[in-house]
Amino acid sequence: MKRIVIVGGGFAGVYTARALEKHLRPDEAEIALVNREDYFVFQPLLPEVISGSIGLLDTVAPIRRLCERTRLYFREVEKIDLEAGSVWLAPDFRPRSLELPYDYLVIAAGSVNDFSSIPGLSDHGIPFRTLGDALRVRNAALHVLEEADNESDEELRRRELTFVVAGGGFSGVEVIAELNDFLRGAAGRSFRNVRQDEIQCVLVHSGSRILPEITPSLAEYAQKLLAKRGVTLKLNARLSAATPESVLLSTGETIATRTVISTVPSAPVPLVTSLACAKEKGKLPANTYLELKGREGKVWVAGDCAMITSADGSPSPPTAQHATRQAETVAKNIAATMRGQQKQAYSFAGLGKLGSLGHHSAVAEILKFRFSGIIAWLLWRTIYLLKFPGLDRKMRVGLDWLVALFLPPEIVQLRVQTSSNITGQHFEPGEMVFEEGDEGVCLYVVRTGELEVVREGARLATLGPGEYFGEMALLSNRARSACVRATKPCDVLVVPRAEFRQLLAIFPEFGTTLNELAARRGGVK
Amino acid sequence: MKRIVIVGGGFAGVYTARALEKHLRPDEAEIALVNREDYFVFQPLLPEVISGSIGLLDTVAPIRRLCERTRLYFREVEKIDLEAGSVWLAPDFRPRSLELPYDYLVIAAGSVNDFSSIPGLSDHGIPFRTLGDALRVRNAALHVLEEADNESDEELRRRELTFVVAGGGFSGVEVIAELNDFLRGAAGRSFRNVRQDEIQCVLVHSGSRILPEITPSLAEYAQKLLAKRGVTLKLNARLSAATPESVLLSTGETIATRTVISTVPSAPVPLVTSLACAKEKGKLPANTYLELKGREGKVWVAGDCAMITSADGSPSPPTAQHATRQAETVAKNIAATMRGQQKQAYSFAGLGKLGSLGHHSAVAEILKFRFSGIIAWLLWRTIYLLKFPGLDRKMRVGLDWLVALFLPPEIVQLRVQTSSNITGQHFEPGEMVFEEGDEGVCLYVVRTGELEVVREGARLATLGPGEYFGEMALLSNRARSACVRATKPCDVLVVPRAEFRQLLAIFPEFGTTLNELAARRGGVK
Repeated sequence: MKRIVIVGGGFAGVYTARALEKHLRPDEAEIALVNREDYFVFQPLLPEVISGSIGLLDTVAPIRRLCERTRLYFREVEKIDLEAGSVWLAPDFRPRSLELPYDYLVIAAGSVNDFSSIPGLSDHGIPFRTLGDALRVRNAALHVLEEADNESDEELRRRELTFVVAGGGFSGVEVIAELNDFLRGAAGRSFRNVRQDEIQCVLVHSGSRILPEITPSLAEYAQKLLAKRGVTLKLNARLSAATPESVLLSTGETIATRTVISTVPSAPVPLVTSLACAKEKGKLPANTYLELKGREGKVWVAGDCAMITSADGSPSPPTAQHATRQAETVAKNIAATMRGQQKQAYSFAGLGKLGSLGHHSAVAEILKFRFSGIIAWLLWRTIYLLKFPGLDRKMRVGLDWLVALFLPPEIVQLRVQTSSNITGQHFEPGEMVFEEGDEGVCLYVVRTGELEVVREGARLATLGPGEYFGEMALLSNRARSACVRATKPCDVLVVPRAEFRQLLAIFPEFGTTLNELAARRGGVK
Repeated sequence: MKRIVIVGGGFAGVYTARALEKHLRPDEAEIALVNREDYFVFQPLLPEVISGSIGLLDTVAPIRRLCERTRLYFREVEKIDLEAGSVWLAPDFRPRSLELPYDYLVIAAGSVNDFSSIPGLSDHGIPFRTLGDALRVRNAALHVLEEADNESDEELRRRELTFVVAGGGFSGVEVIAELNDFLRGAAGRSFRNVRQDEIQCVLVHSGSRILPEITPSLAEYAQKLLAKRGVTLKLNARLSAATPESVLLSTGETIATRTVISTVPSAPVPLVTSLACAKEKGKLPANTYLELKGREGKVWVAGDCAMITSADGSPSPPTAQHATRQAETVAKNIAATMRGQQKQAYSFAGLGKLGSLGHHSAVAEILKFRFSGIIAWLLWRTIYLLKFPGLDRKMRVGLDWLVALFLPPEIVQLRVQTSSNITGQHFEPGEMVFEEGDEGVCLYVVRTGELEVVREGARLATLGPGEYFGEMALLSNRARSACVRATKPCDVLVVPRAEFRQLLAIFPEFGTTLNELAARRGGVK
C-alpha cells in the first residue's frame, strides 16, 4: 500500500488529509499527518481569546476528530529527506528518531514570525500565531493591569498601560481592536485605580494606510473607527528595536511600553528553509498542479509555505480560504497521479475578505460588495461559524457566542508554572538512563548515588557524585556509544541540548572541560 | 485607617476578605489580599478538568470579582515579619520588594504536596492542587495515548498505558475515577489502536480501605464501583520511589508506568514553615477565637495552614466547608477587636461529606443520611453549583454541565511553549539594566555591545562581550551597589537566581570564577 505523508496541521494540512480521505479508498493508501500540536487552530478567531469573548478552546479543534482515517503523529519534524523520500520525526518516549518513508509527500508547514532582523524583538516581542501566543498576550495585559492598579509612580503607570502592536494587516488590526476593547472595558471597573485616559493602544504600520488587503474606502472606515475608540495609529513607521521598557520606531520616536506584540515580519518555518530544493522568496515554488518544482509527481505543497502563482501572475495570499482550496487540488492530484488520470490545475480567485474590528464591528468585501459596521460583523461571525467543521463544534461555539452577549467574560491569568528546563531524574538500581544507539539529547550530572557505563556487557567505568556523562553524544551529535545504568539509587541533573548551549555561552570554560573529558574517555559514550 | 492584610487566596483567604467587606464599613479599614494567582480555585471540581466534563475556566473564579472592595496584590510573599508587623512581597516590574505593614494579619496560606520524602517523586510525580496540575495530568494522559496509538512494542505500550494515583482520600479517588473514565472513553474510539484491556489505572492507598473520611459501608460501595469500572486498588501500600519509567511500592512491587499522580503527603507551605512562631505538627496553632497563639489580637489563622481544634479535641479537617466558616469567624473577631467588642469562639461540626466517583456516581453523607450512586451524584452537582459565588458564574457552569450531557468533550493538549528561563535582553544606549539599590535577582552576561558601571555619577568600569555583571548582589543577597547602563546597543543573557544555583551545581568552577571576580571588583556592584 502507498503511503502519503502530510507535514503540517494547519488549514492546508488538515484539509488535504480530509480531502484525501474522501477521494481515496481505505485500501488505496495510508494517510499520515505530522504536526507538533494535536489540535488545529482556527486562526481568524485567536484575537478574541484576548478579550475572552470566545472560549479558549473554541478556537481550536482536535485534529483526531477532523481526520478520522489518518494516522497522526504529534511530534516535531527533524528533517525531510527529499532524496531518500523520508520524513524524520524527533524522538519522544522512545529515544530514537522515527523514519516515515513516503510515496507521496505534502508539505504544508505554514509560516512563522521571524523577529531576528529587529534588535531585541525576539527577546521582548510577542508573536501572534498560536493559541499559546494569544494566551501570552492575555496574560501580559492582565499582568500590567494588576501591577498598574497598585502603582503610584505616574511614569511607571504610563509605561505599563501602553501597548504596542506592529503590523497593520488583518491580524494586527484585529489584535489591537480586541486588546483596546478589553483594556478599556477593564479600566475603572475590574481595575478600579486604572483610568481610561491612561490606556494607550498604539498600532504601528509600515504603509500609509492600514489593511492593504482591502479597498481604500473600507480601510479608511476602519482607521476612523479605531481612532474613535482610542487607538493611536503610527503610519509609515516600523519597529526598529525593542527593549524591556520601550520600543524604537524607524521614525526616531521612542514609545515607553512593557508590552509589544508583532504580527510581522512573516517568514517560512526553519524546516522549509533547510529543505534541499530551490525556493522563491524563501517559499517552496509550486507548478500549476501544486507540485513542488523539481519533484513533480512525488511532492506537493500548499498553504503559507508555498509560492503559488495565480493565472494573472499574482501570488496566492496566505489565508484560510486559499489554503483549503489548495488542499482540495492537492488531494485530487495525488489521487489522479496514483490512478494515472489527468491532473487538475489550481485556480481560485478568492471569495472576499473579512476583518473584525472588535466590539460588534467589522469590514468585509465579498464578491465586489462592501460592508462595514455591525452588518459586516454579523456576516463575519456567521461565515466563521459555518466554516467550523462538525455540527457539535458549531453548536458549542454558537452557544458560547450567545452566552457572551449576556454574561460578561471572566478573565484570569492562565499561567502554567514554568519550571526550569534543567530537571532532576531519579533511578533505582538496574534501571537504564540510556542505551547504546539512543539519540544523545542531554548531558547528565550525577548528584547522588552510583552508575556504571557498560558496552557489550563489559563495565567500562563507574560514575559518582559530581561526574558528568552523556557529553560525548551531545558534543558530537552522534548516538550514544555505550549504555549507562544505575547501580545504586541515584539522582541526576539532566541538561537538555538547548540549555547546554546556553551554558557554553555563559561559561565557555565549561565546554573546554567537557571536551577534555570526552578526549580522556576516548570515544566512549 | 487600619490595614488588614490577608495572605492567601483560597477558600479561607477569599471568604475572609468577603466577610470583612460585609462586617466593616469602608472607612474602618483597608483590606488587602495577597495571592500568587489572580483567581480562586474551586478545588473539588479540578478532577473534572481531566476528562473535560467541565470547562477549564469553570473551576476558577477571578478574585477581583469576588472581593470588590479589597486591594489585591498578585505576587509571591517573600516573608512575614511578625515582630515588625509587615508582609514583604517579591519584586515585580519594580525591582524592589514591597512592604505591606499591617495592623491585623490573616494567614490563610494553605498547604502543598511535599514529595521530598519519597525518592524521585518530586522529579517524576505530578501533584494535584492547582489548575496547572490538572492541566498537566490531562496533557500527560493525552501524550501517552498519542504515543501508544503509534507504538508497536508491547512492553512500551503497557508502560505508557498504565497510570498510578497515590492517595485514597477524596481527592485521589476523584482523580483516579475521572482519569479512568476519560481513558476508557478514548481507547478504541478517538485512539483507534489503543485497546480497552491495555488501560491500567492503579490507586495506591496506605490504609486498608479507601476514603477514610466516610463510613465503611460507603467506602466499600466506592471500592466495588471503582473495581467494576476497571480500577486496580493497591491497599496497605505506599509509594517508596518513582523513576522515569516506574514506581516502587512499599510492598516491594514495581509498576511500570510513565504517569504518576500523587495527592499525598500534604505539608504546610514554606512560608508557614519559615515563620518565626511555635507550630503544632508544622501548622499554625489557633486559639478558640482563631488567633495565632502568642500573637493574639494581631494575627489570625484559617484554612489548611492552621491547626484548629474542635470542642471535642479533634482537628478541623482541611475542607472548603470548614475554611469558609473559619473565615467568617476570623472576620467577625477582627471587627470585634477593632471595636472593642466581645469575640466569638469558633465552632462548626461539618454538614456532611461528598465525593464524586466519576460518570454519574458519587457517595455522600449528609446530616447522618447516606447516599450513593446517581442520587449522590446529582446532590453533589447541585450543592457545588449552589456554592459558586455569583449568579452569572452559576449560570455559566450550569450551562456547561448541561451541554456536556449532550455534546462529547473535545480534548486537546493545551501546552504553553516552555522556553528556557535563561533569556536574552536587548538595551539601547542610555537605558538602565539596573539601578543602585535594586534587588539583585539576576546575573548578566554581555553578548554584544557595551555598558558602563556608574556610581554616584562616576563611571567605574566599562563592560564588553563575554563579561559578567550583577554577580555581587547575587552572591551576597544584597541590593545592587551601582547602576549599569548601556552605552551602545547591546544584548545580554539574563540568568535568574534559580538557574544560577543550578549552574553552580552543574559546574562548581563557575562559582569560583565569579567569587574571584567579585573580590577583584572589591565590593562594587
